[in-house]
Amino acid sequence: MVYIGIDLGGTNIAVGVVSEAGSILAEASTKTLYQRPYQEIVKDMADCAMKALAKANLTVDDVKSIGIGIPGVANQETGMVIFCTNLGWADIPLRDELQKYINKPVFIDNDANVAGLAESYAGVSAGCKSSVFITLGTGVGGGIIIDGKTWTGAHSRAGEMGHLNLVVDGIPCTCGNNGCVERYCSATALIHMGKQACLGYPDCDIMKRASGDPEKINAKIVIDSAKAGDPVAVRIFAEYTRYLALFINTITSFFDPDMIVLGGGVSHAGEFLLNAIREQLPRYLMFKALPAPKLELAQLGNEAGIIGAAMLGKTI
Amino acid sequence: MVYIGIDLGGTNIAVGVVSEAGSILAEASTKTLYQRPYQEIVKDMADCAMKALAKANLTVDDVKSIGIGIPGVANQETGMVIFCTNLGWADIPLRDELQKYINKPVFIDNDANVAGLAESYAGVSAGCKSSVFITLGTGVGGGIIIDGKTWTGAHSRAGEMGHLNLVVDGIPCTCGNNGCVERYCSATALIHMGKQACLGYPDCDIMKRASGDPEKINAKIVIDSAKAGDPVAVRIFAEYTRYLALFINTITSFFDPDMIVLGGGVSHAGEFLLNAIREQLPRYLMFKALPAPKLELAQLGNEAGIIGAAMLGKTI
Repeated sequence: MVYIGIDLGGTNIAVGVVSEAGSILAEASTKTLYQRPYQEIVKDMADCAMKALAKANLTVDDVKSIGIGIPGVANQETGMVIFCTNLGWADIPLRDELQKYINKPVFIDNDANVAGLAESYAGVSAGCKSSVFITLGTGVGGGIIIDGKTWTGAHSRAGEMGHLNLVVDGIPCTCGNNGCVERYCSATALIHMGKQACLGYPDCDIMKRASGDPEKINAKIVIDSAKAGDPVAVRIFAEYTRYLALFINTITSFFDPDMIVLGGGVSHAGEFLLNAIREQLPRYLMFKALPAPKLELAQLGNEAGIIGAAMLGKTI
Repeated sequence: MVYIGIDLGGTNIAVGVVSEAGSILAEASTKTLYQRPYQEIVKDMADCAMKALAKANLTVDDVKSIGIGIPGVANQETGMVIFCTNLGWADIPLRDELQKYINKPVFIDNDANVAGLAESYAGVSAGCKSSVFITLGTGVGGGIIIDGKTWTGAHSRAGEMGHLNLVVDGIPCTCGNNGCVERYCSATALIHMGKQACLGYPDCDIMKRASGDPEKINAKIVIDSAKAGDPVAVRIFAEYTRYLALFINTITSFFDPDMIVLGGGVSHAGEFLLNAIREQLPRYLMFKALPAPKLELAQLGNEAGIIGAAMLGKTI
């Protein structure tokens, strides 16, 4: 038996046929065109699933279940999408609509939860009883995985890592609060720190790499500049990773998973990022003599969306 | 069948025989005298258990398992106490030692985890799939309960609520860090805020209730003064409950349990405390349209230690 995994994004619908072991056997995709009625989008999901099955020389009879990762919040019991801001969706009966085309069990979950689940089946956290996945991208998202299942909480609120409070009365956040993790630990935050620093040091290495245009500064430039040893970038990166260490310490003291996995754009900084955080963590850690959660990089990249969605229906 | 629950404290060993339903059938206790060799303390635990059984007209044959709540950290797999600072214990084979006297399954867990477990079997959070218990006392402790089991994490670190970072570079904490939850949300923190305020307002109601002696200020005085509407105390209590709201928001955005339960000395402020926090929570909450964890007061008081320890061996 195989699993269908659907990665529903604001731009693309990516669908894969996934094996029991969590590898993608075939894929199909199409544009989301999210302004359309949701019924058309769901029909395209089903069409892509059929195409991917055909590519893999399989039929619906080989499918055990379908999983969908959405950029929003779902009610797992009713199969409703509660909301999906980027798609303009609210109270959409996604499961029922999809089952009109393919009558198999359908599971729906947040895309960051799903990416964490993928890592726990087929990526770096495979074999862990518990893990926490964090995406460091435009925003900060995340997911909690326990015993091969996403932990969505009692009201579908769990894993909103980006909006834990990190700094009391800190930087205003798009969510309406102040001082959220997202304002200090996202790629956006790192870029903002880079731009701010360049105001005071217009001749610094970051500016050189951005061809003198602060608007061209991105996370990779700041990180590359820190790797090269530029003092301004080194200071910024130390500040950024200090916030990450504080955030990771909160996860450790509260939940203490086997592993904390970093994904998203900033995680492409690789060992340089891990080492910087690992250096700062012991300062904050309680019970210094006890072992602590492993800190690792995500392995699956873009495939995590499809694999994780597929694995929503898998039971261990 | 019954369960033995042992509440091991720095001053007393309290032992109870507990029914399947989580009620105490009989109790026995003795002084801990923690300076003694641990073997003597463990023998007294066993003696108390036998006494309590006799009082309940039961024998060891009626016992399903024994649970022990300790003011420290245990390894649930090995049955070792890793450390227990107040008793001066480190690497103590508590399970093996106790089984010399009573050969039944022995479970060991942190006392705050155990109190949370008690509430989830026989207290306010009974019936909840998940709950987080917080003690607001001299320090801040807590426990996470999932499906009738304490969640101790992968390295026995989970539930160290008091040492989540709340204020970056905040008040120095006894743990060596700065800005821990404990420094803002404990009874100690509330007393400290009261004392600080009285320096500026020596004629305020708090000082009157403390007979003009700042050293007599306790949490109850500050709370009673706030209840009476004294402007200084009202302001302190609003600040204190704002920190609690931020802390509770972190738990909600990360873990989203069915219920968050407040215990410990400060929780005796009752509905006055709950209402003050509930008033501040919506300001911080993501997804304001979704339901959120219930916030309630612990119900079991001192009995929670025995009941929760006993329930460590219960499987649902």
